[in-house]
Amino acid sequence: MTTSQIGLLGLGTMGAALALNIANKGFRIAVFNRTTQVTRDFAVQAGDLAARITPTEGLQDFVAALSRPRAIILMVPAGQAVDDQIAALTPLLDAGDLIIDAGNADFHDTNRRAAAAGDVRFMGIGVSGGEDGARHGPSIMAGGDRADWDRVAPILTAIAASHDGVPCATWMGPAGAGHFVKAVHNGIEYADMQMIAEVYGILRDGMGLDNAAIAKTFRTWNDGALASYLIEISGHVAAATDTLTGQPLLDIITDAAGQKGTGRWTAIEAQHLGAPVPVIEAAVAARNLSSRRDERAQGQAAFGAAPQAMGDALTATDLERALIAGKIICYAQGFAMIDAAARAFDWPLPLPDIAKVWRAGCIIRSVMLDDMATALARSDANLMLSAPFTDLLRDTHVTLRKVVAQAALHGLPVPALSSALAYFDTMRTHRGTANLLQGQRDFFGRHGFERLDRDGTDFHGPWAD
Amino acid sequence: MTTSQIGLLGLGTMGAALALNIANKGFRIAVFNRTTQVTRDFAVQAGDLAARITPTEGLQDFVAALSRPRAIILMVPAGQAVDDQIAALTPLLDAGDLIIDAGNADFHDTNRRAAAAGDVRFMGIGVSGGEDGARHGPSIMAGGDRADWDRVAPILTAIAASHDGVPCATWMGPAGAGHFVKAVHNGIEYADMQMIAEVYGILRDGMGLDNAAIAKTFRTWNDGALASYLIEISGHVAAATDTLTGQPLLDIITDAAGQKGTGRWTAIEAQHLGAPVPVIEAAVAARNLSSRRDERAQGQAAFGAAPQAMGDALTATDLERALIAGKIICYAQGFAMIDAAARAFDWPLPLPDIAKVWRAGCIIRSVMLDDMATALARSDANLMLSAPFTDLLRDTHVTLRKVVAQAALHGLPVPALSSALAYFDTMRTHRGTANLLQGQRDFFGRHGFERLDRDGTDFHGPWAD
Repeated sequence: MTTSQIGLLGLGTMGAALALNIANKGFRIAVFNRTTQVTRDFAVQAGDLAARITPTEGLQDFVAALSRPRAIILMVPAGQAVDDQIAALTPLLDAGDLIIDAGNADFHDTNRRAAAAGDVRFMGIGVSGGEDGARHGPSIMAGGDRADWDRVAPILTAIAASHDGVPCATWMGPAGAGHFVKAVHNGIEYADMQMIAEVYGILRDGMGLDNAAIAKTFRTWNDGALASYLIEISGHVAAATDTLTGQPLLDIITDAAGQKGTGRWTAIEAQHLGAPVPVIEAAVAARNLSSRRDERAQGQAAFGAAPQAMGDALTATDLERALIAGKIICYAQGFAMIDAAARAFDWPLPLPDIAKVWRAGCIIRSVMLDDMATALARSDANLMLSAPFTDLLRDTHVTLRKVVAQAALHGLPVPALSSALAYFDTMRTHRGTANLLQGQRDFFGRHGFERLDRDGTDFHGPWAD
Repeated sequence: MTTSQIGLLGLGTMGAALALNIANKGFRIAVFNRTTQVTRDFAVQAGDLAARITPTEGLQDFVAALSRPRAIILMVPAGQAVDDQIAALTPLLDAGDLIIDAGNADFHDTNRRAAAAGDVRFMGIGVSGGEDGARHGPSIMAGGDRADWDRVAPILTAIAASHDGVPCATWMGPAGAGHFVKAVHNGIEYADMQMIAEVYGILRDGMGLDNAAIAKTFRTWNDGALASYLIEISGHVAAATDTLTGQPLLDIITDAAGQKGTGRWTAIEAQHLGAPVPVIEAAVAARNLSSRRDERAQGQAAFGAAPQAMGDALTATDLERALIAGKIICYAQGFAMIDAAARAFDWPLPLPDIAKVWRAGCIIRSVMLDDMATALARSDANLMLSAPFTDLLRDTHVTLRKVVAQAALHGLPVPALSSALAYFDTMRTHRGTANLLQGQRDFFGRHGFERLDRDGTDFHGPWAD
């Protein structure tokens, strides 16, 4: 039996795709799945790649098939299954062997597992791009000891997506750093999708476009500054015909979105870090509320028909420009959150490299991310304050205001876009209104306030006792 | 020595005020503080009330001064200090004695402590109203075993604020239920304050009013539907003169708001519960961003003067009506979150009683809460769908849209008000836009979707493989 260079445990959709990708890149891989029939079926479907794949039917055989020091990728459901597999594998492994959790772990769990790792090493890597990405080139965000990453990087960079020849696989920092970056990626994905959905609502309900016209609009945008996987597939979705009825597919899909919770993790972690991501929060809330269809029906009955047509108050180009502004603002929040985490956790989390790693392979891949990588490498300021995004925002924020205002007037819900605008306006207003908050807090709780005109932190107002 | 009916440990600002309140209501109370001098000073300042107060200088004397079964209120900083005091007290107590944490505990900690309690009982109560409330009548939200509550209720209802003769002290449910309700109270407090601050910004920067005119506006509103403690004190704060400079106080207070984290807890818990509170989230984010004054100065330099005067686009009455709408929407979110917690944790969390307990004593006390108590008792629907709030919203949402639109157009940040409007519009739109999200998710991740025209949960689009 040829010794395999790497092992993969868990041949579900993602695991199988990743194993084929690895074999396809010329690496010898051993695979194992708890249900043996899955392993056998996989070996059959591997076709020509089977020559480099060693299917195994027991954990000991699996481990024995690997060259030392061993490296084993776990692709099992996040949670207890990961702990179970680590516990089962560890007694069979030697010092210096490496277990790599490539599932969708909560980065706190990855931190815990990394801290508990002893002679047998542990890494957590975030893998984005769905089944297609896993098979043909995902975006890989790695966390763990740098030396462990260096050892497996030749394989993981080879199987990753690449952008202009640069592989989309990077070490983000120790322990849970990779899964953390993946979580923020998913939060941004929620926000990107939600802003597109809001604009879709305006096209559909405000401007009265049919699905074909909406699809065409998305296709046009995909040739401009918004060029991205999500805009591209929005065009495909809007253009699709339902095979059962022959009707436009979009019109028969129920407007209740699912979620696997990773957007929520991002929102929670942003709260812990004190690094606001209101556009992501709005997107997570929108998914939650989307499932309350009965309550929304009651709301519509109570408050009358909504939303309303807006005539020619807005053009498709207005929406494109609003989306450009919203996207920049949303990413500025996401990168600021990662920056806050870098300081809080003392992790490298290299912002320009993170933008680079998202340029291909993952769901949020876009042309704009290439400029973001450049901007983040040039300056550590908020992305909104870096070229070319400052100019782009100067150019588009007026249109974002127009879209938010018209949507507000016509009853079209734009939670994410209006959050983006509010963040922008907050962050470009030097003299804010929190002086009133501080006055109130001092009034009712003697919390004290700072003054603009002198130093000190504990001034009080002349309140009667 | 007269036997005391209750003990209080921790004579900081809040503890001292609460002890005086208890004595003032005719109860005999023993007090203890780690630093003996604090206890002695307290006894002196108690004046006439000292006759009912037993100052003690050791834990054993403190415990010995209490009638059995004992009840001891802890008023120490949230966190480790509570655990330390429980550990110190427990060996000195007998089965059936009761420790009551009246500090600002995270309700998860209260759950843990309640679960760990054995023969010595444990309760957690949320106390709102600041020092003044503690001294003269706070709002009390109690969590723990019902029988324990019944035992101490005579004292705690006597010292609480009352509204039309109804004490603002209620049992919310087991374990951390009281501290949970207090956390949501604080989240709503953040949101209430933020919406007022946004309107203040429009009055100041959009409409060009001076502080005296702003104060007068708040005073006028306090005679209407917005009548509340927070509007009242906003008027006082806006009217105040700085004693150091003779200038309007509000203009010298730095626009950077502090926070103690309880608004953040609410936002995090809402995420866990899947019960969106976007107005609270916007308020927490606004406090965070308020502290980034340098970054905001850079933003203003980059994007030009903001915000802009809006002439007579809005009137003060428009702002009042927008605030009424925003407030109803915000409270609807808060009560919906409590309702979700009641189901998730299997706690009573009686919504009408919670509204009642907030009618007096606490920071968010308002006239509107009385109507909310009535509405919540009559119907378990979303507050927006209950009389009289449905009519009030029908009356005011058009003005909320106008205010959000004008603020958007003129660069005035209104994150909380625009989140409120987006929530309202989302919840009154039966056919939303999450069908596009589901189409996207199926396209890139084969997540499947539901259809409007037939049953089933796992339909897929005709995507090429």
